[in-house]
Amino acid sequence: DGDANAGSQKAASCQACHGAEGKSAVPLYPNLAAQHAPYLLHALQAYKKGERSGGQAEVMKAFVAGLGDQDMQDLAAYYSSLKP
Amino acid sequence: DGDANAGSQKAASCQACHGAEGKSAVPLYPNLAAQHAPYLLHALQAYKKGERSGGQAEVMKAFVAGLGDQDMQDLAAYYSSLKP
Repeated sequence: DGDANAGSQKAASCQACHGAEGKSAVPLYPNLAAQHAPYLLHALQAYKKGERSGGQAEVMKAFVAGLGDQDMQDLAAYYSSLKP
Repeated sequence: DGDANAGSQKAASCQACHGAEGKSAVPLYPNLAAQHAPYLLHALQAYKKGERSGGQAEVMKAFVAGLGDQDMQDLAAYYSSLKP
């Protein structure tokens, strides 16, 4: 399972687009705060597997390339734990 | 631009998975309530363009197949307007 505290320490790269608290300042980028962890994990895995293209998908693919399964679980747990 | 009221009347098919108020009961499906409208529109268009695969993408592709640009804008405005 994901560890939200560990995820918070892996989220530095996410914050530029998705906001310091998971609420993005740029409305084309999704808010992540309080999103379901299983969906967040799915989305990260989808980028990693090349199942998403277009938009900012290439950016996301680059970021997730360096993430392992535990990293993605931790990030999902972290953003899911934030207040909407 | 999207019309949230019109979107509410087009959202019946969305509610089974994404919840009556945009909060999904199934954690693998994303909450939509209070998500940024431009991101929601982007996601709908991405499904329509075949830019997402895996997971429930085939289900989403089937739903968006019947939606026009205005429909997608209205749905994005509607879900964006809901409380998180």
